[in-house]
Amino acid sequence: MINEFYKDMTGKGSIIRQFFDYANKKGAEIGMENIYNFSIGNPSVPVPQTFTDRMIELLQTEDPVKLHSYSPSLGLPSTRQAVADSLNKRFGMNYTMDHIFMTSAAASALAHALRCVTKDGDEVITFAPYFPEYVPYVTGTGAKLTVIPADITTFQINFEEFEKSLNPNVQAILINSPNNPSGIVYSTATITKLADILRAKEKEYGHPIYLISDEPYREIVFAGVDAPFISKLYENTICCYSFSKSVSLPGERIGYMAVNPACEDAKLLVLMAGQISRFTGHNCPPSIIQMAVESVLDQTSDLSIYETNKNILYKELTRIGYEMVEPGGTFYMFPRALTEDANEFCWRAAKELNLIIVPGDSFLCPGHFRISYCVTTDMVEKAIPLFEKLYKLYR
Amino acid sequence: MINEFYKDMTGKGSIIRQFFDYANKKGAEIGMENIYNFSIGNPSVPVPQTFTDRMIELLQTEDPVKLHSYSPSLGLPSTRQAVADSLNKRFGMNYTMDHIFMTSAAASALAHALRCVTKDGDEVITFAPYFPEYVPYVTGTGAKLTVIPADITTFQINFEEFEKSLNPNVQAILINSPNNPSGIVYSTATITKLADILRAKEKEYGHPIYLISDEPYREIVFAGVDAPFISKLYENTICCYSFSKSVSLPGERIGYMAVNPACEDAKLLVLMAGQISRFTGHNCPPSIIQMAVESVLDQTSDLSIYETNKNILYKELTRIGYEMVEPGGTFYMFPRALTEDANEFCWRAAKELNLIIVPGDSFLCPGHFRISYCVTTDMVEKAIPLFEKLYKLYR
Repeated sequence: MINEFYKDMTGKGSIIRQFFDYANKKGAEIGMENIYNFSIGNPSVPVPQTFTDRMIELLQTEDPVKLHSYSPSLGLPSTRQAVADSLNKRFGMNYTMDHIFMTSAAASALAHALRCVTKDGDEVITFAPYFPEYVPYVTGTGAKLTVIPADITTFQINFEEFEKSLNPNVQAILINSPNNPSGIVYSTATITKLADILRAKEKEYGHPIYLISDEPYREIVFAGVDAPFISKLYENTICCYSFSKSVSLPGERIGYMAVNPACEDAKLLVLMAGQISRFTGHNCPPSIIQMAVESVLDQTSDLSIYETNKNILYKELTRIGYEMVEPGGTFYMFPRALTEDANEFCWRAAKELNLIIVPGDSFLCPGHFRISYCVTTDMVEKAIPLFEKLYKLYR
Repeated sequence: MINEFYKDMTGKGSIIRQFFDYANKKGAEIGMENIYNFSIGNPSVPVPQTFTDRMIELLQTEDPVKLHSYSPSLGLPSTRQAVADSLNKRFGMNYTMDHIFMTSAAASALAHALRCVTKDGDEVITFAPYFPEYVPYVTGTGAKLTVIPADITTFQINFEEFEKSLNPNVQAILINSPNNPSGIVYSTATITKLADILRAKEKEYGHPIYLISDEPYREIVFAGVDAPFISKLYENTICCYSFSKSVSLPGERIGYMAVNPACEDAKLLVLMAGQISRFTGHNCPPSIIQMAVESVLDQTSDLSIYETNKNILYKELTRIGYEMVEPGGTFYMFPRALTEDANEFCWRAAKELNLIIVPGDSFLCPGHFRISYCVTTDMVEKAIPLFEKLYKLYR
């Protein structure tokens, strides 16, 4: 018989998806140019030309049998080595290829990392606001996800609540910095304090507590912002990376899991990830995409538009009267909604102003809304009067 | 703490892998040209040029932001529609895009299909000899895999044993035709008989029994062989396909799950597969690979070498005295070993003759060995005297 658990899920579209679908439907009626769609985190700048050139070169010059042949389940050795080299050079680390597992972007890296270090009945802690897909990633392992409420004055970690929630059943902490949806980057002070607490608790509980660090926005950090390389500050860190945002390849599903060489059982965790894949039918990312991504490990797309857009939106929205913490990176910001029910607030913006923003409830942080500004600067500028109108509807 | 289940698996390399690794190690010593490696199912003919041309065209002409953007989790609508159209045209079916779920090759299609129709404690039946990865695919859902012993005189289904094993807990039957490792194709008579039994048992048990049909070798069928399109003969069929073998793209991880429109809850199963992905971090295959594969849906690589190699090997090996059932497709054959312990037999072939073949034990069919003849015809011809020497070691 069909699996009732998955069947019951099919009815429930995500809230973000509902706004996105509304935008497309309304756009079909009145023209997409009249829709101000700030709902989706799709990069708006092209992949570096190096990647495109390398793909074409591989297709034109390599023996197709060899080019398209199976990759080992941990990833191509050359790609794993190149990822290690790039991380070592940029962040002063000492990864080898044995610490790198190639994945289908961050989703797969997170799902593998969580399966490596948890089992049925374990507990994983994350911090609101957080990416809603953390729920299936964590519950898919049989573990339980505990969410620490946001510190909405800074969007750094709410340590008071965190320390209350720690218990010997907690095997992993899942963090995302730079953060979707807040745009906030955890500071060196925040990560250092987190690391100190975890080390003390590891000693107390007698087992490691792994820090699973979801870093798809690592390369999108604005000028002057303190953005530490998290693995450097805590030994038992598993970094989960995606090339989706930094080089604008979201559809090509490529990323990696990098286990800190100082992590307990570091190399074993990578080998375990290869075993985990066999159960989910995941296997590794396509060979040609792995090969081509090697050419852009030390590059990013031209990400400057995101900072330009952030600067305009932050300046204008705070001028209008919106309250928010200034983003340090990503292409999101997370202002307070002007009424308690952010869902109602966002639907009103959509229906009365064709301004598509999404409620913070999806990120377990009600009373806020997310603006995704991976759009043209022209659209950002044209949307300012709409944000002003929206403000006047409430104040 | 790290997950002990996956940890314990890391020590256990597959037997096939051990032979493959031995071949590479020995080849490094004495030259790869002196190793007759028949251990691995990697296609030896190139992808159709159409695919390569389409990839290059996409890279050269499409807007990179659009080209590399997210695919919906069920797959690109145009690709799903094109897969449905191609199946309808070639097999007289009536799929729509709503019956198609794009996957990372057959592994992912099988893992999703099994999760759709089973839950903890259910039972899935398969037939020896079978692909050893079926164990993690099935146990990954929480179900139990029951293996029906082979009918080694024909390698069609052992119906006597099958009927004894059926019980109300069985939710799915997992088949693979053309078969790895036997090379046998299930005949229309076999599938019709299977379908009749399943329909009767569905009525008796009051629930559907899904036929999960693993079809990566569907397009590799030799002249004159009866090779029915399985979904045509049984309503509740979920076809799991891969482009790995038919168009020689194993490393690019692309395939699909096609749910028979006549299947109970057909469209719902596809929607459920999209939900299942969220738990495993799988997501859909890369956008560019989906787009490019559309161009080769009605094509195959030049597969004629596999039939040439089969003809030579079948003729020469039976002349020498080996016993086997003649393959109807794939690029495998599965003769009887010349001693009871096929494992010992294969290691002797490797160590004394540099002839790399793998024991049937991995496929739960001891006393046999698999020859993968996706190699050059020259290598096949040069290996015949070695098979002759091997025979003489025992007879």
